[in-house]
Amino acid sequence: MSEQDAVLFANQAFYAAFAGRDPDAMEQVWAKDRTLTCVHPGWAPLTGREQVLASWRSILSGNSAPRISCHQEHAVIYGDCAAVTCIEVIESGVAQGERAQAQYLAATNIFVRVGHIWAMVHHHAGPANVDPRTLDDDAERPKLN
Amino acid sequence: MSEQDAVLFANQAFYAAFAGRDPDAMEQVWAKDRTLTCVHPGWAPLTGREQVLASWRSILSGNSAPRISCHQEHAVIYGDCAAVTCIEVIESGVAQGERAQAQYLAATNIFVRVGHIWAMVHHHAGPANVDPRTLDDDAERPKLN
Repeated sequence: MSEQDAVLFANQAFYAAFAGRDPDAMEQVWAKDRTLTCVHPGWAPLTGREQVLASWRSILSGNSAPRISCHQEHAVIYGDCAAVTCIEVIESGVAQGERAQAQYLAATNIFVRVGHIWAMVHHHAGPANVDPRTLDDDAERPKLN
Repeated sequence: MSEQDAVLFANQAFYAAFAGRDPDAMEQVWAKDRTLTCVHPGWAPLTGREQVLASWRSILSGNSAPRISCHQEHAVIYGDCAAVTCIEVIESGVAQGERAQAQYLAATNIFVRVGHIWAMVHHHAGPANVDPRTLDDDAERPKLN
């Protein structure tokens, strides 16, 4: 697996934890010994492991936890640090997968190399105007399994 | 100057170029030999030096270039890479400095160490609900001059 694929794999693990509403998996994704920061849509930035993980526990445990998927992932590696930009699609309609009911967010995710893995240190998501026809559902990407 | 101050100094140079509507200064802020990415408010992510710098030239040359200031900067250094989160205040009212007319954005800015300086490789800004009373106008920060 290339370094870029390894970063995208870590990014997918984040979205798998998010989509699976799994706070334990979410905690595993984030780096253990670094300063963590997070900007949820519409929120002011959060700083510190405790604040960031508490926000995720709150989001993932709520009834309104969104059905989310990640598209157009693009990873850039800067030494032991990597930034992923991507489009998040939030399905909020009754009819599953109905694009007309979807909301689109642009996201920035930052990872740092910790031994052989890439661990998340920052997440930022905010509203984006995206043409759904540009979403690359069938693009090749590293698989989690 | 500490490493953290050096990163905040680079962050301030970005906002000085932005506020000064100076495309040449803006180009200087960005790294020359790295992949650049940028998420403007409401836009999908842009990738590549040409696309990113063209977007800034377009924004800075328009009559609607915003009057912008940066607050609550927080820098975290991960080796040769650093992430700054901050609040951007966009003054759009007729009466200068009138907070009631201001818009607030949360921003993530990523810098990489290039020799002795920190160069920008990523910017992401999106709407944030911020209590203006929390803004630290008088906070101590490194000066550009």
